[in-house]
Amino acid sequence: MFENLQKSSRKNHLKDTIIKVNNTTIGGEYLTIIAGPCSVESEEQIVDIAKSVKKSGATILRGGAYKPRTSPYDFQGLNEDGLKLLSIAKKKTNLPIISEIVSVDHLEFFDDIDILQVGARNMQNFELLRELGKVKKTILLKRGFANTIEEFLSSVEYLMSSGNDDIILCERGIRTFEHATRNTLDLSAVAMLKEISHLPVIVDPSHATGIASLVKPMSLAGVASGADGIMVEVHNDPQNALSDGKQSITPYEFDDIVRTSLKIRACL
Amino acid sequence: MFENLQKSSRKNHLKDTIIKVNNTTIGGEYLTIIAGPCSVESEEQIVDIAKSVKKSGATILRGGAYKPRTSPYDFQGLNEDGLKLLSIAKKKTNLPIISEIVSVDHLEFFDDIDILQVGARNMQNFELLRELGKVKKTILLKRGFANTIEEFLSSVEYLMSSGNDDIILCERGIRTFEHATRNTLDLSAVAMLKEISHLPVIVDPSHATGIASLVKPMSLAGVASGADGIMVEVHNDPQNALSDGKQSITPYEFDDIVRTSLKIRACL
Amino acid sequence: MFENLQKSSRKNHLKDTIIKVNNTTIGGEYLTIIAGPCSVESEEQIVDIAKSVKKSGATILRGGAYKPRTSPYDFQGLNEDGLKLLSIAKKKTNLPIISEIVSVDHLEFFDDIDILQVGARNMQNFELLRELGKVKKTILLKRGFANTIEEFLSSVEYLMSSGNDDIILCERGIRTFEHATRNTLDLSAVAMLKEISHLPVIVDPSHATGIASLVKPMSLAGVASGADGIMVEVHNDPQNALSDGKQSITPYEFDDIVRTSLKIRACL
Amino acid sequence: MFENLQKSSRKNHLKDTIIKVNNTTIGGEYLTIIAGPCSVESEEQIVDIAKSVKKSGATILRGGAYKPRTSPYDFQGLNEDGLKLLSIAKKKTNLPIISEIVSVDHLEFFDDIDILQVGARNMQNFELLRELGKVKKTILLKRGFANTIEEFLSSVEYLMSSGNDDIILCERGIRTFEHATRNTLDLSAVAMLKEISHLPVIVDPSHATGIASLVKPMSLAGVASGADGIMVEVHNDPQNALSDGKQSITPYEFDDIVRTSLKIRACL
Repeated sequence: MFENLQKSSRKNHLKDTIIKVNNTTIGGEYLTIIAGPCSVESEEQIVDIAKSVKKSGATILRGGAYKPRTSPYDFQGLNEDGLKLLSIAKKKTNLPIISEIVSVDHLEFFDDIDILQVGARNMQNFELLRELGKVKKTILLKRGFANTIEEFLSSVEYLMSSGNDDIILCERGIRTFEHATRNTLDLSAVAMLKEISHLPVIVDPSHATGIASLVKPMSLAGVASGADGIMVEVHNDPQNALSDGKQSITPYEFDDIVRTSLKIRACL
Repeated sequence: MFENLQKSSRKNHLKDTIIKVNNTTIGGEYLTIIAGPCSVESEEQIVDIAKSVKKSGATILRGGAYKPRTSPYDFQGLNEDGLKLLSIAKKKTNLPIISEIVSVDHLEFFDDIDILQVGARNMQNFELLRELGKVKKTILLKRGFANTIEEFLSSVEYLMSSGNDDIILCERGIRTFEHATRNTLDLSAVAMLKEISHLPVIVDPSHATGIASLVKPMSLAGVASGADGIMVEVHNDPQNALSDGKQSITPYEFDDIVRTSLKIRACL
Repeated sequence: MFENLQKSSRKNHLKDTIIKVNNTTIGGEYLTIIAGPCSVESEEQIVDIAKSVKKSGATILRGGAYKPRTSPYDFQGLNEDGLKLLSIAKKKTNLPIISEIVSVDHLEFFDDIDILQVGARNMQNFELLRELGKVKKTILLKRGFANTIEEFLSSVEYLMSSGNDDIILCERGIRTFEHATRNTLDLSAVAMLKEISHLPVIVDPSHATGIASLVKPMSLAGVASGADGIMVEVHNDPQNALSDGKQSITPYEFDDIVRTSLKIRACL
Repeated sequence: MFENLQKSSRKNHLKDTIIKVNNTTIGGEYLTIIAGPCSVESEEQIVDIAKSVKKSGATILRGGAYKPRTSPYDFQGLNEDGLKLLSIAKKKTNLPIISEIVSVDHLEFFDDIDILQVGARNMQNFELLRELGKVKKTILLKRGFANTIEEFLSSVEYLMSSGNDDIILCERGIRTFEHATRNTLDLSAVAMLKEISHLPVIVDPSHATGIASLVKPMSLAGVASGADGIMVEVHNDPQNALSDGKQSITPYEFDDIVRTSLKIRACL
């Protein structure tokens, strides 16, 4: 197992990779806290949430603009307009921003976006990976919900063999028979990825569980498992969110999660 | 369940869809037999196999040119050259041809290809689906190896809501805990798809099992479950195939499968 | 894989095992048809169904008396009384009978039962297997819903190493992420079991799918995959069945399934 | 979901259950640390390990005597003799002891055992559960590796409806497509169990991962997820262990795990 890995393997790169994005770093000593709404909905919403999560300690702002939805009849995001609103929030808070990209044809709109996210459904969209490997931006690659750890790192090889070394891994839950939670957060994968690879690993407890009350314990568990950070969906009005409201937490709950996460990180 | 379906649902289209491709039809009375190698490797190879499978009763020739491989360091197919070789085999046998497309940027090379295949890894590549929905060609969509029946048909909605009605569904095995076979061929999904949808359903026992000796029983089981056809990997020299040799059967074995499949079809 | 197998392996027993039970045989030339209600409910019910399925071609009568239910608050079966009613049906139809046993402490009540069934939940109840291995009765062992083919045959080794050679294997669906059907019927496992082992294999489409309309296509697919028989839940009044009504078919539908199954069997 | 639950549900028992076993408690304020070898192998081995883990902070000693093994040809444990050796270790260290029971027929040998463990393979062995529910001893029930949270608590209902209130839940990993780790430790299940039920929950990172180097991060993650304790396989000579050596850690590594676990617990 794992014989096909080259650039992503710790065998060929003993030290942890530390990625610098604007005024923050991912990997290494400090815990990365990515937070924000599932979808960017309005300027007021995103600026409001950005200010609030920054105050609680978030280091990166997230917000979806191009939303890959199971059904074509569901809300598909604000697209370019959403990215522009993210930029405004960035200017007002100085937080680096991350958003999902689903096609290289949209690259021109991502100029001001600091980290390109590749979603779980595109983890094996090798054409997209090959092209993004040529882009000079940090990429956060989410594990496909039914992909093995080995396949995950093989997809990273598509990015890295195209020339991009600044890759962040993200565990966001895998599909199992258990349906009480949306997916099963695979924290042993986090621990194993830290062994096999030198790249930073982030945990997404919001998409993994799909249930707001589980976001805190799974954030803490993610940090304790050795993750370099967490990515959490925060909404100022979860009940009226245009997508994923059920798993979104309030700024107040987020504040509590950050504080306890930092304490746990300090124990390791 | 299945409330979000519109164009793919049998509720809105009671009669079975029958798709005409050149001199053959998919769906309805006749059993569709798609056969050919995993990858097109050379003119001699593809023409040789094409003639042989036609003789045994194949109605469509398959052959991969753009191969989405888990690792970037594996053989990626002959690309355009592979499609040209497929065209030669088409001319010599008059069989319609099917090949996988992984990016709309390649569409220009698919002019002579009769059916565009979207692979399992791209089943939720919605950008690709949206664009292919606008193309005037039949599309065979493979079920993702970890996608539910509902998600499968939701992806079909992306194609159909963009204007394409000629969609073939393909069950090719799902990912489970069982590792004695590569995947688990989900034939109850075939029976259920025939109930819920009016679109033709094809079974791919080669990718599902990954084991040559299981291709025959799973082809027959697929036909008995109500599938409109089978798609089988046939190679004139399985042991030296550039990809998927372990699951490829010989033309001789293929002949036997076709004969028995037609007999079973006649019982239904 | 499969190196630990001894008595169940075809390597050590080339010819198919044929088991004789009263006036019928399992394995070899003839297709075995096991039918009957999920639970024995009353004398009238079981005798009525027995006569009806016999007329359609059933060779063995099934009926549950000890029902292992997920919740202790659900109907647990008629126990000994259920077995007595099965015996009455046996006398009236001359069909051999099969029923599930969940504890060796109940063995005394199974005197007149011809085949002891071990259910999926007890497939790795090794204490039960060891004891049943010493009993002079044919045993039908169901595959656990999350057990591999190798584990399945390893459990058979518990029975056979204790001295019992008359073992029937039963595939009844495995647990996967797909929830449109109750479980996923794994017919590649049937084909593989026939390769690796010499023991007869039966398919249970009723428990696998949990949906009456899928029982016919999955019965036929099971026969086409090479199974030695099918086990089908038939109820004279599915809508008022005390358990598993949703997956039970009527005697009329059963008659159709048997006829088509025999035709398909003749094609192989 | 969860409507069938009665005695195990927090709806009917708001406060956390705290179970007293000899000189220790499970649930509530203190973290439970269960440690010991997979199998009891000799007096020297079990006493040696017992002393060592006690020194590091273990509160309960574990050791397998009746081992349910996939194959009948594998080492099956020392049975009664193993239990006697456990008793010796108990006398010498004053640690309460836990061991797996696979049949009520063995109950007489478990007199001196403080906690009866029911293993994952027997989670739906309802006959065993019903009988153990009548025993006046604490029971630790492991979640089956393919059982849902709801089924897990339904099995608890078998124990509790028979009269036993002292039940400890144990998450030990579920079976998924991922094979880099033996199973996938489902920590969202831990968080959810703490919400739905009032019973204490223990995490077993050793069986879940099957890999010694992952035991520490998964122990810490388990504690951070809200578990009331951990159960860890410790061996004084992992390389020569008669079973599960690959996942056993040394007393030295165990000491480190306990210290960090307690620190994390203090953050919550």
